[in-house]
Amino acid sequence: MPPAAFQDSYPEDLSHCYGCGRLNSHGLQIKSYWEGDEAVCRFTPQPYHTAIPGYVYGGLIASLIDCHSTGTASAAASRQETENDSPEEVARFLTASLHVNYLKPTPIHETLEVRATIKEIKGRKVVIASRLLAGDVVCATGEVVAIQVPEHLMPR
Amino acid sequence: MPPAAFQDSYPEDLSHCYGCGRLNSHGLQIKSYWEGDEAVCRFTPQPYHTAIPGYVYGGLIASLIDCHSTGTASAAASRQETENDSPEEVARFLTASLHVNYLKPTPIHETLEVRATIKEIKGRKVVIASRLLAGDVVCATGEVVAIQVPEHLMPR
Repeated sequence: MPPAAFQDSYPEDLSHCYGCGRLNSHGLQIKSYWEGDEAVCRFTPQPYHTAIPGYVYGGLIASLIDCHSTGTASAAASRQETENDSPEEVARFLTASLHVNYLKPTPIHETLEVRATIKEIKGRKVVIASRLLAGDVVCATGEVVAIQVPEHLMPR
Repeated sequence: MPPAAFQDSYPEDLSHCYGCGRLNSHGLQIKSYWEGDEAVCRFTPQPYHTAIPGYVYGGLIASLIDCHSTGTASAAASRQETENDSPEEVARFLTASLHVNYLKPTPIHETLEVRATIKEIKGRKVVIASRLLAGDVVCATGEVVAIQVPEHLMPR
């Protein structure tokens, strides 16, 4: 069996996000996995994800970096808890800030890869750095500050 | 007749962007207008634009800020050219960097407003600051550095 993606472990009532919810039939349904210390997400754009002809629009790139990073935060927090022998329910994270540098136009006819690493993890806050690649070319870099979803925002 | 939106003046071959292209039937088709020195875009999210239940996913907010800001850059450059008495074809802009601070969860059942101002305009570069509001509440702030689309990327 292939390994489960981070997003497959989200509880059902937190699985409707347009970017990463497995239950959102309109959404991107991204999937993220550990590859060593990097978290990787691969996504093939649809023709309508265009900006200028031949290239992906910036909002998709921001969405991929955003949802892949919060998913990575969740997986990293979960991994840390397991190491500390205190496994609890997987924590979900929200984005506090998102920064994307668009280095090159991103081609629409290739499968894109977002590779993320944990820059900092402290209490309820995780900082994630990422690169978005088309083949070997880094088209964008991202930094996300993710905060664990506060209890009062969790669905009942 | 109501005033034309910035995006309505884009040439046809640059009107397919998922965020702001009037010819992208899958896309968000945002519309931006001057209100004095502020450029304003109003957008009503669809139910599937959700993150956690009741709130908009961050990628939509990033997309609105991104496309509204590049549209505002284009309109500001055009306005400047008109003042200088050298009206040319409207220049289109790409995003060089996007920074979004998510201050509060953004409700999904309200029409959102992005209000942008020009922070800097110099040569081919425009810096745009923006706020995303739900009613009177600022839910996010953004800053975009936009660069005029270089000639070699323009469709023929």
